[in-house]
Amino acid sequence: MSAGLDETKRSTGTGRRQGASGERLRVAVIGATGYAGAELVRILARHPAVELVGLGGRGRNAEPVETVHPHLAATRLYLDEEVPAADAVFLALPHGAAVERVPAIVDAGVTVIDLGPDFRLKDPADYPRWYRFEHARPDLLGQAVYGLPELHREELIALADRPVRIVGSPGCHATASILALAPLARAGLLGDVVVDAKTGVSGAGRETKPEYMFGEVNESVRAYGIGGHRHIAEIEQELAFAGAATGAANPGATGVDFLPNLIPMTRGILAAAHVRPTRPTSQDELDDLFAAAYTDEPFVTVVSAAPATKHVTGSNEARIHASYDSRTGRILVISVIDNLVKGAAGQAVQSFNLVHGLAETAGLEQLPLAP
Amino acid sequence: MSAGLDETKRSTGTGRRQGASGERLRVAVIGATGYAGAELVRILARHPAVELVGLGGRGRNAEPVETVHPHLAATRLYLDEEVPAADAVFLALPHGAAVERVPAIVDAGVTVIDLGPDFRLKDPADYPRWYRFEHARPDLLGQAVYGLPELHREELIALADRPVRIVGSPGCHATASILALAPLARAGLLGDVVVDAKTGVSGAGRETKPEYMFGEVNESVRAYGIGGHRHIAEIEQELAFAGAATGAANPGATGVDFLPNLIPMTRGILAAAHVRPTRPTSQDELDDLFAAAYTDEPFVTVVSAAPATKHVTGSNEARIHASYDSRTGRILVISVIDNLVKGAAGQAVQSFNLVHGLAETAGLEQLPLAP
Amino acid sequence: MSAGLDETKRSTGTGRRQGASGERLRVAVIGATGYAGAELVRILARHPAVELVGLGGRGRNAEPVETVHPHLAATRLYLDEEVPAADAVFLALPHGAAVERVPAIVDAGVTVIDLGPDFRLKDPADYPRWYRFEHARPDLLGQAVYGLPELHREELIALADRPVRIVGSPGCHATASILALAPLARAGLLGDVVVDAKTGVSGAGRETKPEYMFGEVNESVRAYGIGGHRHIAEIEQELAFAGAATGAANPGATGVDFLPNLIPMTRGILAAAHVRPTRPTSQDELDDLFAAAYTDEPFVTVVSAAPATKHVTGSNEARIHASYDSRTGRILVISVIDNLVKGAAGQAVQSFNLVHGLAETAGLEQLPLAP
Amino acid sequence: MSAGLDETKRSTGTGRRQGASGERLRVAVIGATGYAGAELVRILARHPAVELVGLGGRGRNAEPVETVHPHLAATRLYLDEEVPAADAVFLALPHGAAVERVPAIVDAGVTVIDLGPDFRLKDPADYPRWYRFEHARPDLLGQAVYGLPELHREELIALADRPVRIVGSPGCHATASILALAPLARAGLLGDVVVDAKTGVSGAGRETKPEYMFGEVNESVRAYGIGGHRHIAEIEQELAFAGAATGAANPGATGVDFLPNLIPMTRGILAAAHVRPTRPTSQDELDDLFAAAYTDEPFVTVVSAAPATKHVTGSNEARIHASYDSRTGRILVISVIDNLVKGAAGQAVQSFNLVHGLAETAGLEQLPLAP
Repeated sequence: MSAGLDETKRSTGTGRRQGASGERLRVAVIGATGYAGAELVRILARHPAVELVGLGGRGRNAEPVETVHPHLAATRLYLDEEVPAADAVFLALPHGAAVERVPAIVDAGVTVIDLGPDFRLKDPADYPRWYRFEHARPDLLGQAVYGLPELHREELIALADRPVRIVGSPGCHATASILALAPLARAGLLGDVVVDAKTGVSGAGRETKPEYMFGEVNESVRAYGIGGHRHIAEIEQELAFAGAATGAANPGATGVDFLPNLIPMTRGILAAAHVRPTRPTSQDELDDLFAAAYTDEPFVTVVSAAPATKHVTGSNEARIHASYDSRTGRILVISVIDNLVKGAAGQAVQSFNLVHGLAETAGLEQLPLAP
Repeated sequence: MSAGLDETKRSTGTGRRQGASGERLRVAVIGATGYAGAELVRILARHPAVELVGLGGRGRNAEPVETVHPHLAATRLYLDEEVPAADAVFLALPHGAAVERVPAIVDAGVTVIDLGPDFRLKDPADYPRWYRFEHARPDLLGQAVYGLPELHREELIALADRPVRIVGSPGCHATASILALAPLARAGLLGDVVVDAKTGVSGAGRETKPEYMFGEVNESVRAYGIGGHRHIAEIEQELAFAGAATGAANPGATGVDFLPNLIPMTRGILAAAHVRPTRPTSQDELDDLFAAAYTDEPFVTVVSAAPATKHVTGSNEARIHASYDSRTGRILVISVIDNLVKGAAGQAVQSFNLVHGLAETAGLEQLPLAP
Repeated sequence: MSAGLDETKRSTGTGRRQGASGERLRVAVIGATGYAGAELVRILARHPAVELVGLGGRGRNAEPVETVHPHLAATRLYLDEEVPAADAVFLALPHGAAVERVPAIVDAGVTVIDLGPDFRLKDPADYPRWYRFEHARPDLLGQAVYGLPELHREELIALADRPVRIVGSPGCHATASILALAPLARAGLLGDVVVDAKTGVSGAGRETKPEYMFGEVNESVRAYGIGGHRHIAEIEQELAFAGAATGAANPGATGVDFLPNLIPMTRGILAAAHVRPTRPTSQDELDDLFAAAYTDEPFVTVVSAAPATKHVTGSNEARIHASYDSRTGRILVISVIDNLVKGAAGQAVQSFNLVHGLAETAGLEQLPLAP
Repeated sequence: MSAGLDETKRSTGTGRRQGASGERLRVAVIGATGYAGAELVRILARHPAVELVGLGGRGRNAEPVETVHPHLAATRLYLDEEVPAADAVFLALPHGAAVERVPAIVDAGVTVIDLGPDFRLKDPADYPRWYRFEHARPDLLGQAVYGLPELHREELIALADRPVRIVGSPGCHATASILALAPLARAGLLGDVVVDAKTGVSGAGRETKPEYMFGEVNESVRAYGIGGHRHIAEIEQELAFAGAATGAANPGATGVDFLPNLIPMTRGILAAAHVRPTRPTSQDELDDLFAAAYTDEPFVTVVSAAPATKHVTGSNEARIHASYDSRTGRILVISVIDNLVKGAAGQAVQSFNLVHGLAETAGLEQLPLAP
């Protein structure tokens, strides 16, 4: 991982940012009662450039945050139905809910970091297809930036100067899959793509459902989303984007076979991307491609041994291992992330940092927690 | 699942079997100190046609079995260096160890059910390639039967009449993968095969290693065997066999991409086979193929919803779900087993039952344990 | 564990039982959709003297049992609102529900084995005190037998001859605690009693609640029932009974400090009973007391090393370890059971066997499942 | 929790400390290959006043820390046999090993924070009794301070002015137990004390042993240390100290019945202290006692609902719940900590901060990680 980005490249914009006086940015979280919301609070409450001014939760009224999230008691924060004025708002809401609230927020000149899917997809037709709702504001879709800094850093930085600042922060499975495959997409190597992912149960959120009870999840594994998990839309969009950036044609990028599996674990995603390349390749070429993609990235590490999700728990790190199997001629890329950090709240803060001209790693320097 | 096989078809052989008098077959387990060995004891001690006459463990001398396996105390059995004369011997030994002991056992006219890999592969050259040892008795390899009743039932039954009776009982990953893919192999549909498997840690045995400590395995997932897990040899052998039986050509059957993953679970394997078919197919065709393959099988059930490993824990059941994805044109087959039962001890007993003319389900009728 | 009871001691009664013809007893389960209900099905479906004629579930109508309990598919049974006529009915219902249904069942001459608390307590006043409902049929309470065979075997056997046959099967925590303490109660040793229990989450049943979600239970432990868990009523009742049987005065028996803890585990209870004895004692005395109590018991084993719940998972076994601490002068007794078997369904079947003149171990001979 | 301590109370001493220039203290960790060592690195590498100058590991030579602790890769630190000169050294070594190394370190004027037991006990006779070795330097024992800031804060601060600065950092079980019981000891309420603790497996360290394998620990619970866990020595010493400070006589403080239990969890301890008080008390008195003890403590929170270990995972927090049971007349105190943070590395850093005149919470402000 690099020591960070060259801050001098960043232009100043209209969005308020931390000044020489050390004044903190005012930030609110809407949807703070879920797991992603809690994780935003955990990170933002210790962010050196942020003042957390409000936590929104439906039907809450001056309720101490620890009544919902006991581990956050030390923040001494409260949940409320409404949040006060802020420089930036993070949304952690079910799909379809953000699109109703975002217009008013951006009209007030406030940055929006949306952790849901409402602003991730460029093609409005993808919403009825994958999420079964018509997008009410396709005009805003075009202005939103897909919040994966490793692919869209310059666009995120450029948002600072725009009147409408919306980040559509990626899905957890999409993050793991795209980071694994983008270097191959750029090289035009994606011939046939199977991604088999294993995820902890926190990815399903805090909603109470029979299938997420301890007695059902423990000592068991099952696949879900068979026939088309929604994150496929993002994965295919971004792999096409990555390929287009270099003019590469990747037939497999628009037909990804993605299968998630629920395993008895709370946090973490391991995505294994099995790729039939479009042409012969080698371990050396893979090493070069992944090094070129990630050597300067603050949160992505290319590792030479198979990574485990436990290596990144609680941190914003992604670790990636790429190998070529000369017996079968296939490429295997394994990526691991903490689904609630790099796959959700941490990545959202990373994008926020970029949009507001902060150090990209601000608030995200905590080391993983193991064992 | 069918009610069982037609017993009347079975010819009588030279191997001793349970007579009208209800006399029990004398059975011994060599390598009873490991997890597979314990599971053999658990099943055989309650088998209605078996008398468990000896448990072998290196360096043990009249040691109560509960000193190693506390849960087996009620059997009141003992571990010893040597086991007494028996009608059949189960071996649960590391690779390379069985081939040294089997010749003497078969010379004495005793049936051998070997749970290790020493008698699974037909081509002697596969041993130095996959297991790094030269097989000392290639002549016996040709006489051994691969103990997957769903593919080799008639051969197992026919062993009864042979002087040399060796069953090479399949590996746990191989069992899950082959059951998932054999119906497609027979139909010549295996164009490009990726199998991504998730396994509980008991598959690694009772050996004490840092990577299997609770603190390392819990709340984590990692892939292993990257570049070529040994069970690939069996999987490719048996898929080729299945295809050859119908004259089907399956280019993918000799180039299986198999990736196992260790998840925080003790028992169970879920194998997800992602197949690019050689020709267009449909859900209807898949339904027909899997029904034809398994409707009459006592231990394999084709299920219409995604199965979880917990559905089969502690039992000899395999559950299989096959689906066609019209978006990508791929086939997905998911199979679940208990790695220690259908993936090891239970399957070995199933083969033993066939070789000795017993009901195939004898001793294996226990229902799964859930939650 | 002994080989079983002397069957010849058992008198014949009016309750129908398995005859020389091998005719099976007709049995139904009401409340088969919960975990205890599923466990009853798992055991009774393989019970050699039972025909499982009906599974009752509120609002169910010819619904295959596997829609609720996938692991039970092989039974090919169905759930229905009503169950057919039977020789015995097992009830696995919330407290207060059984008392409404039992009168009609016993009026029809059918044996009732109730796994809930409605027929466990002798004093009707205990129901409003501990369960917050008035017991509508105190007359039946007096006729019910507390279904812990180790304390009430003769009463259970004697039920066979009675027109009203109701077994109030013990609570899971009560089973573990009473088995640990009864030998001390008989000896008048219970001076001051603290029981600290650790339980898997299946004890809370299949009900979907936020606090039993995987994300909340995994990697955590918490106490519950602080200030008075309901099983204390049973524990104190039975310890008083045990003491009274020998004329022993146990001041601690009516003031048990019982604290259960929820740990990240599905099955199992470990109860640690910390006892300040009423008089000086010794390890030798403890050994004698526990040997006297349990040597002839088919399902209770006194062990010399600290037992783990995994030693009994899936079986009807209880294991007990008693030690005297000369430094503090206290007694420690540890007991482990599978909360769903010896703590619920298995014990209920054990009582059923006694009431119907069957071998006490019938249907309960399955060995524990480990690892 | 209070907002922190009044820093102005702290006198300056001879130990080098962070000056106005912001110069960092040089710190080394000896025994960095274990779990406690890794946790020290995780915390100290992000400590604002610390430069981590060396990690010691037996037989290591310029070995990247991630070869042993993959999650710490981002620190870019190395393991070596020897560590360079430092202002303070943390030792995380097996018992008996620190006493051999500490004399040379303190002779060089370096602060020692020992996470092992070698400097915890005041009475040299306790070492042969509880740890089976003769303490070679009883003179140093008298100069060491027991590093539980909640009981010994002033002594820790006073160490700054001493030439010999040794902190004997408490054991994990001792921390949980003493924090739960000290307020009662001060009030002379400890009549009869039973502590039943539940711990995650990381407390046993990174050593590879059969009993800590995933297959053995998962889905199981067992007690250990029956007859006298070593932490009893610390617990009794400190409860006597707490009582003596107020002149309170606590008969129970010198006869604590302590039982630890291993549960299927990696991190966390929950201690349940069951106390028979020496005199009648009430919930109000308990509330007052615990508020008086902990209201101003930065890392101890008194909570009104039963706490779970998950509420403090990854943080230096302790949470304590005290309740009076009017039915039995007993007191129950439950405390939860992360055994590797407040129970080991975090608490050691807390003491280090005090000894070196830093803010007590420096480097320890990370919020717990949940779910």
